[in-house]
Amino acid sequence: MPAERLVVIGGVAAGLSAASRARALNPQMEIVVLEKGDYVSYGACGLTYLVSGVVADPAALFVYSPEYLRDKRGLYVFTRHEAVEIVPGKKQVQVRRGQEVVAMNYDKLVLATGGAPAESVEGADAAGVFTCNDLAGALALRAFLKERRPQRGVVIGGGYIGLEAAEALRHRKLDVTVLERSTSLLEDFEPEIGQWVSERLAQHQVRVELGAPVRHIDSAPDGSLIISCGEKSVLAADVIILATGLAPRSALAATAGIELGATGAIRTDLRQQTSLHGVYAAGDCVETLHLVTGGPVYVPLGTTANKQGRVAGENAAGGNATFPGIVGTLVTKVFELEVGRTGLTWAGARAAGFQPEQVTVDSRSRARYMGGRPLRVSLVADRSSGRLLGGQLASEEGAARRVDVLAAALSARMTLAEFVHLDLGYAPPFGPVYDPLLIAAWQLLKKIGRRR
Amino acid sequence: MPAERLVVIGGVAAGLSAASRARALNPQMEIVVLEKGDYVSYGACGLTYLVSGVVADPAALFVYSPEYLRDKRGLYVFTRHEAVEIVPGKKQVQVRRGQEVVAMNYDKLVLATGGAPAESVEGADAAGVFTCNDLAGALALRAFLKERRPQRGVVIGGGYIGLEAAEALRHRKLDVTVLERSTSLLEDFEPEIGQWVSERLAQHQVRVELGAPVRHIDSAPDGSLIISCGEKSVLAADVIILATGLAPRSALAATAGIELGATGAIRTDLRQQTSLHGVYAAGDCVETLHLVTGGPVYVPLGTTANKQGRVAGENAAGGNATFPGIVGTLVTKVFELEVGRTGLTWAGARAAGFQPEQVTVDSRSRARYMGGRPLRVSLVADRSSGRLLGGQLASEEGAARRVDVLAAALSARMTLAEFVHLDLGYAPPFGPVYDPLLIAAWQLLKKIGRRR
Repeated sequence: MPAERLVVIGGVAAGLSAASRARALNPQMEIVVLEKGDYVSYGACGLTYLVSGVVADPAALFVYSPEYLRDKRGLYVFTRHEAVEIVPGKKQVQVRRGQEVVAMNYDKLVLATGGAPAESVEGADAAGVFTCNDLAGALALRAFLKERRPQRGVVIGGGYIGLEAAEALRHRKLDVTVLERSTSLLEDFEPEIGQWVSERLAQHQVRVELGAPVRHIDSAPDGSLIISCGEKSVLAADVIILATGLAPRSALAATAGIELGATGAIRTDLRQQTSLHGVYAAGDCVETLHLVTGGPVYVPLGTTANKQGRVAGENAAGGNATFPGIVGTLVTKVFELEVGRTGLTWAGARAAGFQPEQVTVDSRSRARYMGGRPLRVSLVADRSSGRLLGGQLASEEGAARRVDVLAAALSARMTLAEFVHLDLGYAPPFGPVYDPLLIAAWQLLKKIGRRR
Repeated sequence: MPAERLVVIGGVAAGLSAASRARALNPQMEIVVLEKGDYVSYGACGLTYLVSGVVADPAALFVYSPEYLRDKRGLYVFTRHEAVEIVPGKKQVQVRRGQEVVAMNYDKLVLATGGAPAESVEGADAAGVFTCNDLAGALALRAFLKERRPQRGVVIGGGYIGLEAAEALRHRKLDVTVLERSTSLLEDFEPEIGQWVSERLAQHQVRVELGAPVRHIDSAPDGSLIISCGEKSVLAADVIILATGLAPRSALAATAGIELGATGAIRTDLRQQTSLHGVYAAGDCVETLHLVTGGPVYVPLGTTANKQGRVAGENAAGGNATFPGIVGTLVTKVFELEVGRTGLTWAGARAAGFQPEQVTVDSRSRARYMGGRPLRVSLVADRSSGRLLGGQLASEEGAARRVDVLAAALSARMTLAEFVHLDLGYAPPFGPVYDPLLIAAWQLLKKIGRRR
C-alpha cells in the first residue's frame, strides 16, 4: 500500500506549521505543500519592519528554504503552484503551474489559503500602490521606496498594519497621511487607549484623517497619485499602501462545497476539520471560537495561524489535537508606544449580551522613583457575574506583556474578585507595588459592587 | 458610645495599608499607628536603589508623611513608639516612648511588626556593618559609603536582597564579594536560571563564594573588618552588608499567647485574623497559604504585605475580606538581567509530594530579526495531573512580566494542556511567534506524555 499523501495549500504560517507537524508525527506520509507565490516559510508579521529598514536583510525573515524543508524535513514544497480547484469526489486538487493545470491526488488536505485585502479600491492597480500582506508586496514596496525616493506617503486603513506601515514610511522620512474609513483608529480598542495612539502619531507628524473612505485612485500626468476621498476631498501622493484589513481567501473552499461560517471564513470544528471529512483548514482563511463570547470570530493573526496549523497537521497525520479558540489578543507597537488588547471592549461586551462595566486607570510602568513611564489600563467586566471580559494597555514599556496576564485570566474565566488577588511579581524596576492591572481590577470591582 | 479604636503596630507596608483601608471603610473609627522607628510609609523595596544612588533623594521613597496621614486621612501615626507587650485580657498594648512605657487600649489590633535579619553574626555590631532592611539602615549605609569611601565591600547572604546590595556597591565602584552559606545563590531558583545569574555577576566583577558561612566579624587595628568564614578562610573588608534573609518578628505576638505557625511566623486565617479574636496580622510577620502546595509558607515581600494589610484593615473595620494566598512569585534585577520565579521548583515540587517533570528552554525575548535577547524559561509540571506547578525566567528583557503570566496560570490551577493554548500576544518587537512560555510548555507536555 502506498503512503498516504497530505496536500497542504499555502506555504506560510499555517501551511508550513501543518506540514511540519504532520511530518513529525508521521514519517511515512507523503507531504506536498503548494504555494502560489515565490516564497514560503517567512515571518509575515515582520514585513512592515522590512519596509522600514529596521530589518535590513529580507533573508532574516525566512525561517526555512524549500531546499531545507525537502532535505531535512522531507516536505515537497512547490512555489508558483496555485491550487485552482478542489474536487472532493475525486480527492483531487487542480494545480496551476505556469501555463498548465495538473491534477494532484490527496488523501488528506489542509487549506491554508490565507487572507486577501478586505476592500478593493478603484485604481489600486496604478504604479506606486502597494500592499504589505505578503513578502512579494513588501519587497516591491521597499524597492520602490529605495529607488524612487517618494516624498508623500498615504496609508489607506488605520488598523494596526496601517499604523505599522505609517511608521515604516516615517522611518524613511516620508510625509505620511493615514486615511481611515471609520471614525477611529485600531478597531476594537477603547477610545481612552486610542487617544494615546493618536497623540503618539501626531508627535511623529503622522497626519490622520478619520471618516475618510477612499473612492478611487488616479494617476496624474506628473506621476503623482490622486486619491479621491470622502465626498470631495482630494489628496496627492507619491506612494500608497493599502492596509484595509484582511478578508479570508475562502472561495476555493466554498466552490468545493466546504461550509463557510457567518464571518465568511471557513468553518471548522475544534480539530480544525472542515465540513468535509479529511479536509482541514487553518490560519487567515478560517474563523475560530472566541472564548469570551462563545461565538465565532474572524481574527487573522500569525500566532493563531501557527497554532491552528499545528493542530490541523497533527489531525491530518492521524492524531487527535484540538485548538480551543482565542480570546482576541493583539499587541502592536506605535512608534515607542506598546499597545495591546485582549477579550472584549465595553461595546463588544454589550453587543455580546453582557452587562459591561469599564474603568480606565493611569498608572506607571515601574515605581515612580525608578523612572516609570505613564501606563494606561482599561478593563471591562460583567456586572452580573463579576467576570473579567477584556482589557487593554498602552505604555512605552510593560504594556504588551501585561496584556498576556489578562489573556491567561480570560482563558481561565476569572472573576475580578479572583483577579485582584493574583500574586504578580513586584520589584521597583518592573512596576509599582500595586501592579497597574491590580489597581484597575480593584477599581472595577468597586464599581461593580461585588467586593466580597 | 465612644468610637472604636484600632491600634496598628508597624507603620510601613502592611501597617499603613491596614490603617488606610480601615479608614476608607470606617470614617468614625479612631486609628492609631505605632512605629518604633523614625520613618513610616516608605517604599522598602527601593532601599537598595537608595544605597546605589539610582534613587538620589530619600524623599522619593516616601509615600505619605505622618502629617499628611493625620490631616488627610485622620490617622494618628506615632514614630518612635514601640509596642513592647500586648495584654489581650485588658485589650491593651504597652508602648515604650522614650524612657516611659504607657498603656494604650484597643478594640481591634493589627500586628504588622515585620521581619528582622534571620541570622545574627557575631561581631555584627562593629562599625562598618550594616543591614538594608529598613530606611534607617539604608540611610546609615549610604552616608557611610559617601563619607568614608570604602574600597572593599562584602555582602553576607546571596539571596535577592544580597545581590541587589552587591549591585549597589558595584554601582559605587567598590570591589565586591558575596558570601553565601549554602551552595547556591537565590534560594528557590533552578540551577539553570541560577547559572545565568552567576555569569552575570562575574561579568560585573562581583566575586561569589558559595558554601561560605560567616563565623564572626572582627575589627582590625587599621579599621578594616576581618570576616572569618568557613573553617579557616579570612577576608578583609571596609564595609559589610548583612543580607541573611528575614525572619518574622513574632515574639510580641507569641508572648501574648497568639498562635505561631510551623514557619515561626504568626498564623492567621484567610481574613488575616490571628488566633485571638479581633487581632489581625499582616506582612513580614505572618505566614501565608501557598496555593500550589496548599501548605503554609513564609515569603516576606512588600507586595504581599500591602495586600494582606488591606485585608486586615478591612476586617478590623468591620468588613469581611479575604487574602487567598500566594503562589510564590518573586522578580528581581541582577544588573541588566531580569530574573523571576513563581510556584515550585522541581525540588520544591518533589518535597511537596508531586511527581515533577521539568524543562529548560533557551529562546529569545523578541523575534531574532528584531534584535531579541537570549531568554531562558524553566517550567515544572506534575506528571500525574498534568498541572503546571511553577516556572522561572531570565533575560535582559521580557522576563519579569512573563513570570506574571505563569502566576495567573498557577492561581487558575491550569494544566499544561490548557496552558499551551493560551492566546498570548505576538508582534515582532515583543517576542518570537511562539512565545517562549508556550515553547517550554509544549516541550514539557511532550515529556509528560499527555499531549491529548
